[in-house]
Amino acid sequence: MGTVPTLPEAECRRRLAEARHLVLATVHPDRGVDVVPVVAAAEGSTVWVPVDTVKAKSTARLRRIANVARDPRVSLLAEHYDDDWTQLWWVRAHGTAHEAGPAELERARAALGRRYRDYEDPAVIVGALVVALDRWTGWSAAPS
Amino acid sequence: MGTVPTLPEAECRRRLAEARHLVLATVHPDRGVDVVPVVAAAEGSTVWVPVDTVKAKSTARLRRIANVARDPRVSLLAEHYDDDWTQLWWVRAHGTAHEAGPAELERARAALGRRYRDYEDPAVIVGALVVALDRWTGWSAAPS
Repeated sequence: MGTVPTLPEAECRRRLAEARHLVLATVHPDRGVDVVPVVAAAEGSTVWVPVDTVKAKSTARLRRIANVARDPRVSLLAEHYDDDWTQLWWVRAHGTAHEAGPAELERARAALGRRYRDYEDPAVIVGALVVALDRWTGWSAAPS
Repeated sequence: MGTVPTLPEAECRRRLAEARHLVLATVHPDRGVDVVPVVAAAEGSTVWVPVDTVKAKSTARLRRIANVARDPRVSLLAEHYDDDWTQLWWVRAHGTAHEAGPAELERARAALGRRYRDYEDPAVIVGALVVALDRWTGWSAAPS
């Protein structure tokens, strides 16, 4: 299998912060795991994942929020796929998440408003998960 | 929040089977969840996820295999991201997984060999997860 081209932590942090979207995995009490694509904004070891009124949902009380209220352990994934497998890479981070309080929601709105044009009016962000990351792993088919 | 544009199950199955890559989420005993991009081949409610010698790894005994041996519950995600959020969609399936036995590995090699040029020589596939899906959920920003 040879040497594994893992990515250094600084590179993992950079790629996770720059990704336009991530995949969020949470613990589901019955199904074991839940996994959903999300948009996000990162600052240091903090990642904000919004709940918005832009993308249609059945409820603002999303399953992802209910999941982390029961078990705060989450994982976030950034990845690049190409049928040319020499171009593959992914970065995964683990941490814990909680629902944003009022002050945290304001910080989330500011960070997310700078990243996505649909969040120009931050009032569309009605809630957020605050993720505190403590472990990064990255893999790349090619040396970075 | 209006009406949620969920996708019918047949459409979920089609999009999951056609996706060039998926995200696999498994239950990790300490970290709660693990999440990793994978290539895959689907037939009916079965999805094969290979372990190969093409993409460099630290070991053929991957964490994803160890995870499902302890807890078989998995989730697979296919998704499409675009900064134009009217184009977003995702499909998630839940099920259980186990490590392929010899006959299952042959079926996995055949199915995967038809999908990916790097699997033209199926001997590079040295193992596989067999995922039996039993629940599909899909979301699309636009009606399908």
